[in-house]
Amino acid sequence: MTRRVLLLGSTGSIGEQALDVLARARGSEDPLELVGLSAGTSYLPIVRQASAFDVRVVHLADAEASAHAQGALGRAGLDGDVHVASSIAELIERTEPDLVLNAVVGFAGLEATMAALERGIDVALANKESLVAAGELCMSTAERTGARIIPVDSEHSALQQCWAESHPDEIDTLVLTASGGPFRGRTRAELADVTVEQALAHPTWSMGGKISIDSASLMNKGLELIEAMVLFGMNEDRVETVVQPDSIVHALVRHTDGSLLAHLGWPDMRVPIAWALHYPVRPALPDMRRLDLTQMPALSFTEPDLETFRCLALAREAARAGGGATCVLNAANEVAVAAFLMGEIGFLDIADTVERALDAAGDTPEPDSVDAAREIDARARELARPS
Amino acid sequence: MTRRVLLLGSTGSIGEQALDVLARARGSEDPLELVGLSAGTSYLPIVRQASAFDVRVVHLADAEASAHAQGALGRAGLDGDVHVASSIAELIERTEPDLVLNAVVGFAGLEATMAALERGIDVALANKESLVAAGELCMSTAERTGARIIPVDSEHSALQQCWAESHPDEIDTLVLTASGGPFRGRTRAELADVTVEQALAHPTWSMGGKISIDSASLMNKGLELIEAMVLFGMNEDRVETVVQPDSIVHALVRHTDGSLLAHLGWPDMRVPIAWALHYPVRPALPDMRRLDLTQMPALSFTEPDLETFRCLALAREAARAGGGATCVLNAANEVAVAAFLMGEIGFLDIADTVERALDAAGDTPEPDSVDAAREIDARARELARPS
Repeated sequence: MTRRVLLLGSTGSIGEQALDVLARARGSEDPLELVGLSAGTSYLPIVRQASAFDVRVVHLADAEASAHAQGALGRAGLDGDVHVASSIAELIERTEPDLVLNAVVGFAGLEATMAALERGIDVALANKESLVAAGELCMSTAERTGARIIPVDSEHSALQQCWAESHPDEIDTLVLTASGGPFRGRTRAELADVTVEQALAHPTWSMGGKISIDSASLMNKGLELIEAMVLFGMNEDRVETVVQPDSIVHALVRHTDGSLLAHLGWPDMRVPIAWALHYPVRPALPDMRRLDLTQMPALSFTEPDLETFRCLALAREAARAGGGATCVLNAANEVAVAAFLMGEIGFLDIADTVERALDAAGDTPEPDSVDAAREIDARARELARPS
Repeated sequence: MTRRVLLLGSTGSIGEQALDVLARARGSEDPLELVGLSAGTSYLPIVRQASAFDVRVVHLADAEASAHAQGALGRAGLDGDVHVASSIAELIERTEPDLVLNAVVGFAGLEATMAALERGIDVALANKESLVAAGELCMSTAERTGARIIPVDSEHSALQQCWAESHPDEIDTLVLTASGGPFRGRTRAELADVTVEQALAHPTWSMGGKISIDSASLMNKGLELIEAMVLFGMNEDRVETVVQPDSIVHALVRHTDGSLLAHLGWPDMRVPIAWALHYPVRPALPDMRRLDLTQMPALSFTEPDLETFRCLALAREAARAGGGATCVLNAANEVAVAAFLMGEIGFLDIADTVERALDAAGDTPEPDSVDAAREIDARARELARPS
């Protein structure tokens, strides 16, 4: 049976890699059919993708880009073939997907996650912010409608594979690994003057801008910590975080009998993307680089430096505080990362900004709707705005 | 529901550790009940065990030891309470176990494995020689009667846990790890004069004599390679062997998407024993030493040195040859190890003995009964006898 896949955020790093996975699967007896695409503003790439993959419905979040896309389709003689949907809801309804791969970046991804889950459609989730901003809402909606949330983040994909069919009673803790990012081993003082370019230079993973900065600050691991708590129903103190510089071990599950299962492989996002697209069947990916155990670097693990990388500590605090605190954390971080990328604030100011916003927001209730999350998000953005 | 456990080979290393597991589980809402014990000649220990665990039926393989056990029970005033069974079959029939933990050492364990499987009784198998000597016979018998074979070897327990519910199509290869034994890194020349004491000094696992020597020669990994092929239905070229000196990674499963799952923990046989006894439920073992990822040695893997440790290469050859070759390999190795332990031959003579027996035996059919296996075994022992 063919699985109809709707790809949201198709022009970003995950989106492009998902298209690579879909392209490789096309020759074989392929159970995946790409039925729709969305992007934010990148109308030329999405028109090219629609043409290459014979996709009939696309959506652009930006109204101006949407009009440009319409024009570009006309010039390419595709305006009769490709419809530009005016909303995510219309995109979903016209394409009738079995699976939505949500690779939208940031809080903006929540609306799409919820639109799919509410309709009982499975979500392959690369947008971890959905779960950080409104985790309970997403999980309870999925449970109500029977939709599945399949993580695309390599760590969470790894956790799901290590967990497999275990009973929750058999699980002691989850262990998330972090590469440590480009600034691993640096002191706090050494990070005061780092440039955007340095922060973007991730040592092991090839990723988009926002997540690369989050990886440099370890906020990415903080968001993943929260994502893991939500996905696997664990308290914050049952999710360990360790640094594994080579990103070869993606995550581990510690069992109540003292043993651990670990997920290993060369870092390549196409592996967890393919896993999520084919779930629960593991696809054959013969072209992936083989991990030769005797040729790879020795695997070592260290504690993350929470003094230098305060974002991870802040994420743990927000996770412990519960309610809407993680939504505030995420919004403030998005504002701070954008400001850092624009050269408006320094690298260390990212954590300061997030901390200030968390302090100023005070107790925040868990959002029980997308609108409620949007309100918390908007208020937190105000609080985080550079003064 | 209580699971009735019959422990065979209770006075050996695995047997003693199994009793430790059973003792620890006793206080809790224990689903395990020890119903019978067997040993070879150690009649005093088995009488002590029977008394400590309130076991009513025991068996000793050695007729003289059996008579001594009867006498010892009489002197202890237990002869009315504890029956000495005259055979494994009688032991099984009197105790009506749900699970037989077979921790007998060597070829002698095959009879017990088959006696249980033929009666449809699950076997927790520490006696890898059963599968090396007559793998097809054991597996087809289990399939016919519906009995399960649950591996107790730490590597195979790890493989089974990594494999979990995967479809065979999702598995690329299995990876067995070896500590490398006490002679890891030595050259062939350096092994000519090693003593029995040196060969018994295993660096990471505390084990009995036979398996310690097998570990020093890497024959143990060869037997495990054959065991893994039989248990998981894989050809020899789909079972890798690598050296992991700390015995922290017990095995890995390589998937067709390039990812691997690994099983980690401090080496402690009580973990796989407990896993097999409670299978498919993973028990909580709060007293096991916690593996702190950031404090343990870095995990490295190397190729085994097949020039120096020729037993592993010979096991691969026998596995490739198929039929009864692995039965010959096992028998010749048992003779050679016994001769080495008696000081009759040198360490390097073990591999020479096995190779000579394999060559002399020529094509050997796969045994289709315990008697057929016994015949191959006896002939191979003759061929291996030091001249």
